[in-house]
Amino acid sequence: LALISEAELHRLASEALGATGLRETDADDAARILVLGDLFGIHTHGVSRIESYGERLALGGIKAQPDMRIERVAPSIAKLDGDNGLGPLVGMRALREAMAMASESGTAAVFARASNHFGPVAPYNYLAAREGFASIIGSNASTTIAPTGGREARLGNSPVGFGIPGDRAPIILDMAVSVVARAKIRDALKRGEPIPDTWATDAEGRPTTDPRAALDGFLQPIGGYKGYGLALIVDLFAGLLSGAAYLTHVQSWSDHPEKPQDLGHFFVLVDVKRLGSAEWLAARVADFKRILHETPPVDPARPVLLPGEIELGVLQRQRREGIAIADDVLAALRAITSRSA
Amino acid sequence: LALISEAELHRLASEALGATGLRETDADDAARILVLGDLFGIHTHGVSRIESYGERLALGGIKAQPDMRIERVAPSIAKLDGDNGLGPLVGMRALREAMAMASESGTAAVFARASNHFGPVAPYNYLAAREGFASIIGSNASTTIAPTGGREARLGNSPVGFGIPGDRAPIILDMAVSVVARAKIRDALKRGEPIPDTWATDAEGRPTTDPRAALDGFLQPIGGYKGYGLALIVDLFAGLLSGAAYLTHVQSWSDHPEKPQDLGHFFVLVDVKRLGSAEWLAARVADFKRILHETPPVDPARPVLLPGEIELGVLQRQRREGIAIADDVLAALRAITSRSA
Repeated sequence: LALISEAELHRLASEALGATGLRETDADDAARILVLGDLFGIHTHGVSRIESYGERLALGGIKAQPDMRIERVAPSIAKLDGDNGLGPLVGMRALREAMAMASESGTAAVFARASNHFGPVAPYNYLAAREGFASIIGSNASTTIAPTGGREARLGNSPVGFGIPGDRAPIILDMAVSVVARAKIRDALKRGEPIPDTWATDAEGRPTTDPRAALDGFLQPIGGYKGYGLALIVDLFAGLLSGAAYLTHVQSWSDHPEKPQDLGHFFVLVDVKRLGSAEWLAARVADFKRILHETPPVDPARPVLLPGEIELGVLQRQRREGIAIADDVLAALRAITSRSA
Repeated sequence: LALISEAELHRLASEALGATGLRETDADDAARILVLGDLFGIHTHGVSRIESYGERLALGGIKAQPDMRIERVAPSIAKLDGDNGLGPLVGMRALREAMAMASESGTAAVFARASNHFGPVAPYNYLAAREGFASIIGSNASTTIAPTGGREARLGNSPVGFGIPGDRAPIILDMAVSVVARAKIRDALKRGEPIPDTWATDAEGRPTTDPRAALDGFLQPIGGYKGYGLALIVDLFAGLLSGAAYLTHVQSWSDHPEKPQDLGHFFVLVDVKRLGSAEWLAARVADFKRILHETPPVDPARPVLLPGEIELGVLQRQRREGIAIADDVLAALRAITSRSA
């Protein structure tokens, strides 16, 4: 594990992305999202992804130099054709357009299609919040969730993020709709432990405590039909309305790395600066946080937190002390860069 | 139980609301939302509410003839001061403004403050969808949910609704963030049955299977910290950003019926007509529904449904055959009307 500065990690990530064929400014954009992922401590969705992005670029499943096209269909709505470019690049382009439109109109929506995995959602919410925008941002994903009452995966474990600008730090909720990620089930299998029957179903759609049966089955969405409904709403906004693929039309990255996924994303922004002064907002958000922080805790050693608070704490610490990156991830980035040099 | 036509129920509800002091057009607006609640089969949030609304109006906790003021703070953002008017009235005014702005700009957000319980959310999503708008609509509520790791209620079981216009019928998800409503726990207590330990905690914040302890404790949000996060996001949009009360600042209707609650709501709309033709949308939504309906079911007798499908089916049937309303509810409406006559 190495501690590396944000600037240095950004340089390494940009160079590696450039080495896979991206234009310099595009590599810079995509690196920004991934480095923020690492800054938040979400290393599974950080620069470690560049290696697999590179593999898909090499196979032609992602286009290194896409011809992205923005079409404004209303004063505050744009459609973005990502031309099968790298997800975080399409995402940054969409976010920038959404911020520009929301600055003019107050609210904005950008719908992106022909895209790919766009990284973690929290960085987009964070960048929007820093400019004073509240945001609701989501993406669809290849299918891993069965509808309530069904026994075949027809929905993705779609991520959705919400951000509100705050006093010193924003409030950010970045979540997928499953109770847990598949990785937690794999961990239980490795340890030879059963799982709670609320995490997943077997292949027949029946709740199971057997991690092996769960991995052959489907992730359970939070709150049963409510989480199923949320997954479906995210796909309607991200996939159906954007003109992208949706539900089972989304290509699986792992099964067909050479085929475009045609993922979709949506970015809905509200310019909070129009609602009141920075002081008004800061005072209300500080009070809001205080009320939650002062809740008597179940365990006195574990005070009540707000969503995103751990990640934002990690970000601040890593900005001071350096970002902790696994040695093999750094080595992979350097290998990608030197291969093309 | 009586079967009564939509027009007749609307007339009865409007007259009863008028008898409580509302202006005729305002009574008409509020009745529209409540009758739609009954049409969807959500009778707990339908015209049966008029009796308790009337009691609060009589106590001065709600203003019968509010001076609602809309302020457009950006081309597509408005703030609405509800002046402590009846919730469904404030809600209808906000929805109408949001639709007008979204028709111009493509997207819109209306933030309402100084309001009250605005009825079920689905009718607002339904009315928006009928005019071609996708919508995200929510309200805060008095506190019943403890933050994750806390043992005091600091959040409401905030309702949020999502709507997407469709082919013949829209897709609507109207949900609260708790696993179940308190009514289901009260039912278990009446039957003398234990409840699943995922429904609620006791007063110390510990999961419980005892319905009595649960009623003294807190509802559990769906997915643990994810549902807590969703409740908090809804309150940030509905309460904090709108300028209304939020978290513990919201007055409890039952504890202080004579005090204004200062609830807040938000209405975020996207004009889907700007994204493609009606034919394009209808074909995609029909395909989306088909993919989900054709999922092999766990129980062959119970095919997979989409959110809102049951309610929309009830609406269609009741429009044909009449709305089923309990006799005591009808009697109460007639009593309110005749008292003032």
